[in-house]
Amino acid sequence: MLPLNFAGDGLIPVIVQDVTTREVLMMAYANEEAVHLTQSTGYAHYYSRSRKKLWKKGEESGHFQNVKQVLVDCDEDCLIYEVEQTGAACHTGYRTCFYRTLEGETIGKKIFDPEKVYGKTGH
Amino acid sequence: MLPLNFAGDGLIPVIVQDVTTREVLMMAYANEEAVHLTQSTGYAHYYSRSRKKLWKKGEESGHFQNVKQVLVDCDEDCLIYEVEQTGAACHTGYRTCFYRTLEGETIGKKIFDPEKVYGKTGH
Repeated sequence: MLPLNFAGDGLIPVIVQDVTTREVLMMAYANEEAVHLTQSTGYAHYYSRSRKKLWKKGEESGHFQNVKQVLVDCDEDCLIYEVEQTGAACHTGYRTCFYRTLEGETIGKKIFDPEKVYGKTGH
Repeated sequence: MLPLNFAGDGLIPVIVQDVTTREVLMMAYANEEAVHLTQSTGYAHYYSRSRKKLWKKGEESGHFQNVKQVLVDCDEDCLIYEVEQTGAACHTGYRTCFYRTLEGETIGKKIFDPEKVYGKTGH
């Protein structure tokens, strides 16, 4: 396994890409434990900077990410998780978090109603 | 234009994706000026954290990125530049910076010899 450069905060950015459509679904951060759990379980794990805890994608929503391959960049300080996405990646209900252009036009597709999945409090 | 959340250091992570092949080419950071220059010129600009300066991709190598569209994520704290890549994105000579699996297998394609493009000192 390649050595990874976790930044000063112990985290590495992770780009999440749909292995079939090649769509970029989201960006998140992982610590060493999250990378290890992703490898050993085959399901995407991250570290939440706001909640300060490890999380498994889909643990609340059921929208798990089955990780088919992990890629590493030249500087070993960024990863790609190539995944099969159940449902949608974004807590807003869109398939990808990147559903808008910089000009503010919505180009993504809404897959679910977040109130029904997460309750009225959002994620 | 959507408001963007630049982090405490004034930077926003940018995922760079080939608009045709959908390949993820690299990850870099931009400050407000870099995003503005990318929009106004149509060429990818970033902010180098190590060199502490704005840079235009390709200024040394000639491997410019023509930006066709910029996407914003749900939290407005991450961007995608969808680009037409001249040559290769990675300074190592590979088309994408993500040319290896976490296990260390090389799966990417080498496009150029970095010594010929950047000289013996690397980038």
